[in-house]
Order: sequence, then structure tokens, then C-alpha cells
Amino acid sequence: MNKLFNQPLSIINIGLPRFAESVQAQGVPTLHLDWSPPLVPHYSHTRNGTSIDAANQEAIERLLAGRPMIVGLGLARDVIPNLTNHTILHAGPPIEWEHMCGPTRGAILGALVYEGLAPDPEAAATMVDELHFAPCHHHHAVGPMAGVISPSMPVWIIENATYGNRAYCTLNEGLGKVLRYGAYGEEVYQRLHWMADILYPILAEAVAFSGPIDLRSMIAQALHMGDECHNRNRAGTSLLLRALGPALARTCTNTEYLAQVLEFIDGNDHFFLNLAMPAAKATLEPAEGIEGSTIITIMARNGTDFGIQVSGAAGQWFTAPAAQVDGLYLPGYNEDDANPDIGDSTITETAGYGAFAMAGAPAIASFVGGTAQDAIATTLEMYTICFAEHQHLTIPALEFRGTPLGLDVRLIMETGILPKLNTGIAHKHPGIGMVGAGVLRAPYQSFADAFEAITTW
Amino acid sequence: MNKLFNQPLSIINIGLPRFAESVQAQGVPTLHLDWSPPLVPHYSHTRNGTSIDAANQEAIERLLAGRPMIVGLGLARDVIPNLTNHTILHAGPPIEWEHMCGPTRGAILGALVYEGLAPDPEAAATMVDELHFAPCHHHHAVGPMAGVISPSMPVWIIENATYGNRAYCTLNEGLGKVLRYGAYGEEVYQRLHWMADILYPILAEAVAFSGPIDLRSMIAQALHMGDECHNRNRAGTSLLLRALGPALARTCTNTEYLAQVLEFIDGNDHFFLNLAMPAAKATLEPAEGIEGSTIITIMARNGTDFGIQVSGAAGQWFTAPAAQVDGLYLPGYNEDDANPDIGDSTITETAGYGAFAMAGAPAIASFVGGTAQDAIATTLEMYTICFAEHQHLTIPALEFRGTPLGLDVRLIMETGILPKLNTGIAHKHPGIGMVGAGVLRAPYQSFADAFEAITTW
Repeated sequence: MNKLFNQPLSIINIGLPRFAESVQAQGVPTLHLDWSPPLVPHYSHTRNGTSIDAANQEAIERLLAGRPMIVGLGLARDVIPNLTNHTILHAGPPIEWEHMCGPTRGAILGALVYEGLAPDPEAAATMVDELHFAPCHHHHAVGPMAGVISPSMPVWIIENATYGNRAYCTLNEGLGKVLRYGAYGEEVYQRLHWMADILYPILAEAVAFSGPIDLRSMIAQALHMGDECHNRNRAGTSLLLRALGPALARTCTNTEYLAQVLEFIDGNDHFFLNLAMPAAKATLEPAEGIEGSTIITIMARNGTDFGIQVSGAAGQWFTAPAAQVDGLYLPGYNEDDANPDIGDSTITETAGYGAFAMAGAPAIASFVGGTAQDAIATTLEMYTICFAEHQHLTIPALEFRGTPLGLDVRLIMETGILPKLNTGIAHKHPGIGMVGAGVLRAPYQSFADAFEAITTW
Repeated sequence: MNKLFNQPLSIINIGLPRFAESVQAQGVPTLHLDWSPPLVPHYSHTRNGTSIDAANQEAIERLLAGRPMIVGLGLARDVIPNLTNHTILHAGPPIEWEHMCGPTRGAILGALVYEGLAPDPEAAATMVDELHFAPCHHHHAVGPMAGVISPSMPVWIIENATYGNRAYCTLNEGLGKVLRYGAYGEEVYQRLHWMADILYPILAEAVAFSGPIDLRSMIAQALHMGDECHNRNRAGTSLLLRALGPALARTCTNTEYLAQVLEFIDGNDHFFLNLAMPAAKATLEPAEGIEGSTIITIMARNGTDFGIQVSGAAGQWFTAPAAQVDGLYLPGYNEDDANPDIGDSTITETAGYGAFAMAGAPAIASFVGGTAQDAIATTLEMYTICFAEHQHLTIPALEFRGTPLGLDVRLIMETGILPKLNTGIAHKHPGIGMVGAGVLRAPYQSFADAFEAITTW
């Protein structure tokens, strides 16, 4: 022992990094191996004997079979099932007004003014008792950030051609001072009215003329063009414009309006986000409700809570407090302004893209922070907590390997590796809007509770 | 010595790979280090004392200052300087009819029929003595593949806003049976006439309305979206459509024609190639004629010869036989059908993109062959023969490192590393068209001769 410590040491540290750090502090060459023993044993069957692997395989097959298509647009009240005139949908798991965060409240107040139900946000605030709030996910819909959908908003209609189910999402407003980031005011209402009065009917007519547009193919292409289809949608937006262009030209008789529509979409590289999201939702819904499956079918946040649903326990939310985002901020803002993680857009990660496809989107580093090497590492790490790999969505930089698909609560608990999420950052106060974008890990407790529910089946 | 060879060996081989191969064949672990001594000494000054480094630095500064912009479209006869009605431009260095390859002859014969000068290719073949053939490069133009420009073809006009010089290129026809790959026939003529009669005036009016369009910015974005702007132009084509869309809508009164134009461009992911090329040409011309500079300002092939020009010996071609392409072939074709390397499109590599930016375009592997790792390796290798790195064109996957810029004949001779080129492959017989795409090295002799010319200045 004396001999050992009298010669130069090279240390390999396995487990807690603190040991490596203290040795390193003394100038000893140290390699830290980031390893920990499995937190929980591997469960291959539920308590009643159902094979979890077989159930998960079934879930993956349904995900891979999904064919999300744009089939049309409509007003929320006309097309989203069970939406009364006093229902306001929001992102994430269920939440009452009392516990809603600033941006969700801001978006709801703004939506009430937009709907003509109140003259201003102050008056709108007195009406909230008359309203019914529900998660978008309870109505086959998804909403980025605050995710507010009010009855007269136009929405995309996405149909999974294989299973016939439909999903819905509003049209993307752009960045900055926009409703989904909790902003309100004349600029916000005017843009929403232009979107409903000009953009919506023109897009609706073009889609009706062109016929269904294949979103899985478009997402697959966009992943080959530097998008991860969550926080970077420049390629997806470009491909959508290419696909719609001829039909827009043939159906829009007012060429000035046509030019405005093209300019609006060209001016907003996130326009495709509101298609990447319902495409994911339409793909995931058929994988819900498979007995014994530990595949996650929903991850969503309302700005207060983060919540998941698992295929084998469909309809049941497992929630935890929403985490803070590690982000890059717009000039004039910092982390003190930031609301916790918010929005349904983590449906993209749930469906195998977004942060999970970061390896194909190195340019996103300038938007959410980090390096190209981090982006590769993120995708590689996510493989360890996914049950399978995608067959249709691939990453050229990883030699066309499929993206990580099918988040498995078991693997998250065994490895202790939490899903990485990309996201925008809203100001924590109502009425202001976007302040940045970044990345974070989903909170542990949701997965622990879902796992607990599974192991006690 | 006996002791050495009686223990397990691990070999590091430096230099000729044959040694490594024979040891490896005997099952001995072998690491081959690809190294060779400098082929020639490093020259820092020309014979008359001019600093080569200073001259090259000046060339790089001019390249970096270049701002290629789309400023309009016109007919070749009206806008390309010194083009008589009997001049036919072609790709690559000068060549007489007798030595022209099949695809160049095919494209010329097809162009004569398109111009209405002959009823069919056979009749056109009897007219070639009446024509004047010249390289595109002698008229500030570039042409992909056969690169044929005849007087009534519409061309893009690209102006370098910093230096005022202009470059020209035809509009891209698409892939397959097209004139630039040496094809002729009714399908080819009809497409060319539609392009001149419908596409050209509509694009010309839109560009006139929109004002100059910044190609350097568009190329920079496309490199962040998986294009290398030579053999992959899906992102560039998308971004061009986005940029032109509103102006097209505002200027084109015939919405059916507008739809056809949008469809034609959407249907051809290579449409942007014919902008990436003249953008490179417009950027490189101001770097010509710097005394003592060993920076290459032109690489081009006519399908028979490969040729380069070097800044310090402007106007002088250094040629070598065009090489065969290592490619992927369309169904029904193989390397026996392939014409040697052809076209002016290597102007993209000369300007720091194309194969030099492969690291940012891993998806191109499905078009030209190779792996994503090969793509990274190509870019890294090209840094060793370039004088500088680009400041405006960057590669996210390499942590936003600038692309290799300024091919230096000295470095090519010192290292023995020849420039890698991406390219399409034309059938060797006239009248057929595209048979594949691939990669290759530029031939050694051009660089050796240019180097010789420099060292004897």
C-alpha cells in the first residue's frame, strides 16, 4: 500500500464524481467514468404476468405504422371534439386558474379579448370562473408554450392515415410578443385576427385543393436538413411552403393576400412547429392503452407542472413540478424573468424527434446553447432510455441511424437518465412573451410515479 | 532482435501502406499512419521576390469581401459580353469539336436544334464548322456538366456587390434526360422552350420587383441545412423559393403559370446549383491576377480535359486529362457508360463549398456514395491544401468552423493531397443524359504544371 501511494498515480473513478474532483484538485490525472448501478431491477413482466417487452413492441409497431397527414384546417369550435363555447384549452396536465403560471394566464386573458368576450385583460380576469379549462391533450390537440386554444381559433387537422385518428394544433404566430408565450395587446390580437381572416381561409383552400400532405415524409426530410422539428423548423417551414406553393397559386385569387401569406410563413421559421407537434400527437395516440406497455405516450407541461402519460396506464397523469430551463436569453432578459418549462411541444421528443434528434441539428446550438458535440451526445444518450429506433426518421450524421423512439419508463428508472427536452422560454409574468430558448431534463418524479404504478399492476 | 520478434508485435507503419498490409495479412495488429515526406519544398517567395503569402492573403481578403447577389435575368445574347450569334459556350478549358466528348457534342447539337438553326442533331452536326466555341469562363459564365450556353438561352445575372463584376449561368433544367448531361430530343427542347417562354420572364419580373437577392447569405444558410451547394441543393432551392415567393405572387398575373413555375422549381432540388455556381464565379473573379498568388481561381472540366487557373497566372490554363468519377449509378447504367469528369461546377469547391463543405452535408452520401464519416474526413483533409478558412460560410457539425477556402497550388504540391470534387456523371455518348453522381480527385498534372509556372516566375 505504501509502495502504491509512493508512485505516480493515475486514477479511474467509477460512480460519484465528487471523488474524482477531489483527487483531480490535487493534480492527479483522473478519468471519471459516469456510471451508477441500476436504480431499480429490470422488470420484464407486470405483476399479472403481461410481457412488458411484447406490449412495448406492439406500441412501437403502432408508432412506426403511423402516417400523419395534413388533411385540412378548421375553426377549433367546429372540428375539435367536445369543445363548448366556454372551453379554453391549455398545454400540459390539468390545472385550475389558481395554480396557473403567468404566461398561461396571459394567454388565456389575451384569448378572451381576441374572442371578443372581454374588452381588455383586466375585464377578462373577472370572467375566469365562467370558463371551463382543459388540457389540449384531453381533446386530441397540442399547443406550444401556453398552448391556449379558444373556440374561434383556426387549427390544422392532422389525420393518421393508418388509424384514422385526428390531432389538432393552432397556426404558429411567430416569435417574440405572441399569445402562446403569454403576451397580449393590440399587436397580438391584430396578428391573430389576420391569421383567422386571411391566412386560415387561404391555407384551408390550398390544402383542400392539394389533397393530404404527408408530414412523416416532410419531418424525415427536415431531419436531413438540420431541423430537429422542435426548436429548429427552418427546413420544415421551407418544405411546407414548397409543398403548398402550387396549390396556393391555383386557389388564391387575391395575389396581394397570397404574397402576404407567403411573406408571413417565410418570416417565421417556426411555422412548421405547429405541424411537427400534431403529427407527433396523431402518431402517438394509437399507441395509448396497450396493457403492460411502459412506453410514454405524452410528455407535456403547463408551466406549473410537468406531466406524462404511459401507454399501459392511459388517461392517467403522472406529474411533478415543472423545471427551470437552461437557456440562452434574448437581449434584456435573464433567468430571473423565466417561467418554468411550459408547453405541449415535448410531444416531439415523445415521438422520437426534437431533442432526441439533436445529432442531426448541430446548427441549433446558436438558438438553445451547447455545442455540436453536445448535440451528438444528447441523441446517443437518449438511445439508452428508448425501447427502439425509428425506421422512417433517420440521422445522416449517425450514418442514417434511426432516431431514438419509444421512451421507456423502465429504462429511465434503471439508468437514472432523464429525457432531455428542447424548449422556448416564456416570461413568468402574463402579457410579456418570449424571453429565450434552451434545454433541460424532464423531472424525475413523474417517471418514478409512473414506474410505481406499473410495478404494482 | 530475436527477443523482439519472439514477443507479440504491435506495428505502427509510416509511409507506404503496402508494408502495413502485408504485416496485417499475418494477423499482427497494425496502425497505418498515412504520411509522406513533402514532395516539394515550401516556397514563400516567387523568383522575383514577391511574397506568395502576402499575395495569397490579398486573394483571400477579396474572396471574403465578395457579395454575390442575384440582380436579374436576361438572354445570353443580350447580357453576356462578346457573345456573337454563332458563339456556343461550353464548360471547362478550351477545346475544339474534334476533341469534344460525347455529352458536350450532344449538348451542342441539341442547342443548335433548340436555337432553330438545325432541324435535328444530324443536320446540326454538319454546321459545327460555322460556329465559334469558347469556354464559359472566357465570358464570365459557368455551366454545369456540358455547360452549353447558346445565344437565346435565359441566364441568371449575378453581381458581386463589392467589386461590381458580374457572372452568368443558365437556369437548371432538372435531372435525367437534360441538355447539360448531353441529352437531346423533343422532351429536352420542349423543356428549354418552356423555360425561356414561361419560367424566364416570370422569374425576371419577380427579381426586378424584389431587388437584389443575397446569395452569400443563402449559401451560408443552406450549408447549415445539409447542402454542400454542389451536388445537394435541396435547402438552397427551398430558400430561393421562399425568397422569391412574395415577389412572384405580386408580379405574376397568370396564376396557372405561377403555379407551374413553383411546381417546376419544387420538382428540381438542383435548381439552386445554377445560382451556387455563378455566385462562386462572381466571388472568385476579383481574386484573379494578383502577382505571386498561388490561389486557384478556376477549376473546370470539358469532359475531355480538366483545367485550372491560378491567380498569379491569370488567363493561363493548366490542363490534364479529365479523370473517371467514383460514383453511384442510376438503374441500368454502370461505369462503362460514364463520360470522364465534366462541367464548370467545380467552381463551388474553388470557392470553398461543394465537396469542401461535405462535413455539413452527410445526407449527400445517398447521392454520391460514401459515409457521413467520409464526409467529415473530406472537409478536414481539404483544410490541409487551403490557405485559409471562410468567415461567412461555416459548418455547424465542426462547431461552426469556416469552410476550407483558397486552394493553394503550393500546399497541393507539398502534401500530394489532390482536391476532392463532387460531380454528376453524364453518359459518354451524345443524346442520352445523366447516368449517376459521385466523387473524385482532381488530376495531379494541372497542379504540377501550375506550380512549375510559379516557381519559374
